[in-house]
Amino acid sequence: MEYTMAVKIAVTGAAGRMGKTLIEAINLHPDAELTAAIEWSESPAVGVDSGELAGLGKNGISIVANINDVIDHFDVLIDFTAPAATVANSKVCSVNGKKMIIGTTGCSEDDKASIASAANQSAICMATNFSTGVNVCFKLLNDAAKILGDDYDVEIVEAHHRHKVDAPSGTALSMGEAVADGLQRNLKDVAVYGREGQVGARTEKEIGFATVRGGDVVGDHTVMFLADGERVEISHKASSRMSFGRGAVRAAVWIAAQDKGLFDMQDVLGLK
Amino acid sequence: MEYTMAVKIAVTGAAGRMGKTLIEAINLHPDAELTAAIEWSESPAVGVDSGELAGLGKNGISIVANINDVIDHFDVLIDFTAPAATVANSKVCSVNGKKMIIGTTGCSEDDKASIASAANQSAICMATNFSTGVNVCFKLLNDAAKILGDDYDVEIVEAHHRHKVDAPSGTALSMGEAVADGLQRNLKDVAVYGREGQVGARTEKEIGFATVRGGDVVGDHTVMFLADGERVEISHKASSRMSFGRGAVRAAVWIAAQDKGLFDMQDVLGLK
Amino acid sequence: MEYTMAVKIAVTGAAGRMGKTLIEAINLHPDAELTAAIEWSESPAVGVDSGELAGLGKNGISIVANINDVIDHFDVLIDFTAPAATVANSKVCSVNGKKMIIGTTGCSEDDKASIASAANQSAICMATNFSTGVNVCFKLLNDAAKILGDDYDVEIVEAHHRHKVDAPSGTALSMGEAVADGLQRNLKDVAVYGREGQVGARTEKEIGFATVRGGDVVGDHTVMFLADGERVEISHKASSRMSFGRGAVRAAVWIAAQDKGLFDMQDVLGLK
Amino acid sequence: MEYTMAVKIAVTGAAGRMGKTLIEAINLHPDAELTAAIEWSESPAVGVDSGELAGLGKNGISIVANINDVIDHFDVLIDFTAPAATVANSKVCSVNGKKMIIGTTGCSEDDKASIASAANQSAICMATNFSTGVNVCFKLLNDAAKILGDDYDVEIVEAHHRHKVDAPSGTALSMGEAVADGLQRNLKDVAVYGREGQVGARTEKEIGFATVRGGDVVGDHTVMFLADGERVEISHKASSRMSFGRGAVRAAVWIAAQDKGLFDMQDVLGLK
Repeated sequence: MEYTMAVKIAVTGAAGRMGKTLIEAINLHPDAELTAAIEWSESPAVGVDSGELAGLGKNGISIVANINDVIDHFDVLIDFTAPAATVANSKVCSVNGKKMIIGTTGCSEDDKASIASAANQSAICMATNFSTGVNVCFKLLNDAAKILGDDYDVEIVEAHHRHKVDAPSGTALSMGEAVADGLQRNLKDVAVYGREGQVGARTEKEIGFATVRGGDVVGDHTVMFLADGERVEISHKASSRMSFGRGAVRAAVWIAAQDKGLFDMQDVLGLK
Repeated sequence: MEYTMAVKIAVTGAAGRMGKTLIEAINLHPDAELTAAIEWSESPAVGVDSGELAGLGKNGISIVANINDVIDHFDVLIDFTAPAATVANSKVCSVNGKKMIIGTTGCSEDDKASIASAANQSAICMATNFSTGVNVCFKLLNDAAKILGDDYDVEIVEAHHRHKVDAPSGTALSMGEAVADGLQRNLKDVAVYGREGQVGARTEKEIGFATVRGGDVVGDHTVMFLADGERVEISHKASSRMSFGRGAVRAAVWIAAQDKGLFDMQDVLGLK
Repeated sequence: MEYTMAVKIAVTGAAGRMGKTLIEAINLHPDAELTAAIEWSESPAVGVDSGELAGLGKNGISIVANINDVIDHFDVLIDFTAPAATVANSKVCSVNGKKMIIGTTGCSEDDKASIASAANQSAICMATNFSTGVNVCFKLLNDAAKILGDDYDVEIVEAHHRHKVDAPSGTALSMGEAVADGLQRNLKDVAVYGREGQVGARTEKEIGFATVRGGDVVGDHTVMFLADGERVEISHKASSRMSFGRGAVRAAVWIAAQDKGLFDMQDVLGLK
Repeated sequence: MEYTMAVKIAVTGAAGRMGKTLIEAINLHPDAELTAAIEWSESPAVGVDSGELAGLGKNGISIVANINDVIDHFDVLIDFTAPAATVANSKVCSVNGKKMIIGTTGCSEDDKASIASAANQSAICMATNFSTGVNVCFKLLNDAAKILGDDYDVEIVEAHHRHKVDAPSGTALSMGEAVADGLQRNLKDVAVYGREGQVGARTEKEIGFATVRGGDVVGDHTVMFLADGERVEISHKASSRMSFGRGAVRAAVWIAAQDKGLFDMQDVLGLK
């Protein structure tokens, strides 16, 4: 007899902004179930009902401070926290045969090596952007660049909220890399990050980045391919962190069926 | 000894807006040469220099009223006229071993059968939109729909100049078909062409079309894939008829090397 | 001795999506204070702490089922509920010298007459959209239409989430009215709500509406003025209900200083 | 007896790209008539029919090399040429009581003084952008900035063709000045022309410019006002030089009724 069971998911960093989003996203996925919620030991949220905290009403899953206390309760851990915690969690998970989804950013090369090592024992999916749409855009941009070729000038415009400290966004840079790869260019050689004054005509192979900062924009990205008489634009507009949350949960459901190895969101979406 | 010669091209409807654009596009293509220009017998442009008419200066190619008078002067006929003329031209061309590019719209099933029959003897490329960018969009849309699937609502917005008589545009409908094919839906069953009043919530599988008419917009098309938290948009914006003209000439150069058969712009661009 | 006190505000419909947004917006305004929260008598939220419900942490203001129980606790009632409740509340408020902000939609002519009558005794501000930006757009659209005149074709495109049941949005219609007023046209005579098939060329004075439905779009509106060679576009994009909440609270602080009369958001913003 | 006569207009630089556009725009205006066409003496177009050159068919107005030969044939001269020619023309026109529309750019302070001096005798309208839409945008932007105030972050995005040598465009800078004026800021103090790397959060009063270069974009400008929960955008998109041509002809018809003085496009449109 065959039947499908929901994938049992734990969220760490459960009381943070992204943690609450993840809990909401798990709630919405038909094949996923929240079975554990973790915070660091000093968090005032320890002991609190995670559903209530996420604004979803009581769900009976209290937040715990130690992953080992709930290690038997889940199949997959979703971790959008900080490098040190993530590396530690990856060791615990791999030893216990638990899969992981990692959205933590800022990992050093050493951190990445630790995570890769953990992935030798149990499957891990790591990415800097879990939005399905953004990952689909990476693929579409690469394909479009290959077909359109050098006849089309490429420009990338992105907008983010007023608090963002870096420019252009990591996602914009990844989009630039997807295009540069399709055009067999090296992004570092052709990227232009601003234009001011008598800069002269555009060079043929440059890829321009333009950056908008203001308000509470979650993240808009548009890549333009411009030629005489026409342009093609591929845009992604995030309206809430739910786009990242939903992607991470989709990845969690997918990775539950994998054995071991290090994957990224392109693998989950079958885009490779 | 090998060498490359320019493809000899005839344009019919040479004095019309699209005809003049085609003559300009031929002028710009390194491997194409205008060698004949045709209009219907009543046209005041018969006898006039086609280059002068197109605003390019005299080119020595006078407009003639009968294709048979110039049948030995060209390899490929480009025809953006009306169904009856196009069908008649396809017969003349196939008998004489001339290739054709057909951009005529509004052909009946009978017309299409006649053209297909002519293509048994000589190569014909027929499409409703010859812009490279639009055809690339068709492919990107089909791919995007396959990957994004039913979680994303699909809506198509197009804008054209105030004189356009039909809605939505043929290109918008083709985009809808590219998406519907990717989603394994039948466009006829799911297309929604307007919303007014208490229409209720959107159904899951509908594909909505929204139409803007005004000014001199050559043609803007945007397909949106909308989900909770994000949207992906693929847009094409034509800024002049030259995008169509350049594509048609590219197709003419390509078809000169084909033997027989009915092709479309996806074949020309290698997108199949 | 002079000093400024925060305006005491009650929210009815406090447990609904908009109610929670209003509570959050009051929390953020330096001159506003939540002093009462009301729901209908059958609501499971009665007795619950309104701050906790809004995800802001306990604020000590429990939700009550009867406005009369808290009538002495507030200066201004904000009401985004349903016509019958709003009309009843307007009577209670006017008798007790309480001001009101009304965002309820779908009121009949009779309902509006009742509200106007209540406003003879105490100040009421009623609008279909409390966003500052949207109201600024109403003014800009009216001005733009007056200056641009009949040479520019007007088209309005709006997008909302998949659950919205009416089309076009009330805000889009109000934008159409702002333009029609500027052009001395009657919107009812010139509005076109969809185009399908062989509809013929656009008429000069029509104002077209195009509607997009999908995902979780809070509300995008674009009004285009299109002429030969150029277009002017005025857009409003709401990224959260907070734009409406902030406007309503701004109106509440403003109306606390008014004596009596019926106002709208243009009055609050000094746009008349 | 009252009647209206078309304003008689001369175009200098008649064989250039902008000259041809002006001739076409005059042709389309019900109250304007082309009565003279001028080029510099070495131009091969001297003696050619100006209508034919503009692609409009013969109009009987041959291009002459000396303004004095046609000085009695027109009421208003439209001059989009070069500073030296424009200054010389302004002297001839003022002496002969002819009005002028000047779209020439790059004039020195001395040139401007000469033109102002000519305007003491006969009316002259001079502007860097004659598009009605752009000038309306200047006013709308100034008004919007005054109303929206410091709560909204301002960002300006512009796109132009790949050949444009300066950045941002003069029009983008003028839009920035219109906004800065409305916000009582000095553009020079608050303009930011690019963002790259760890630039930190946006400062409250900065006005950001982002520049796109590619294809044959005639000129797109968007000014965004971004706040928490919403943004207002005002955009201008030029699709052909006709938007400039039509504005210049509108100005010519308007200036025919003025006596003397130096005006700009805001005067013509009654926007002051």
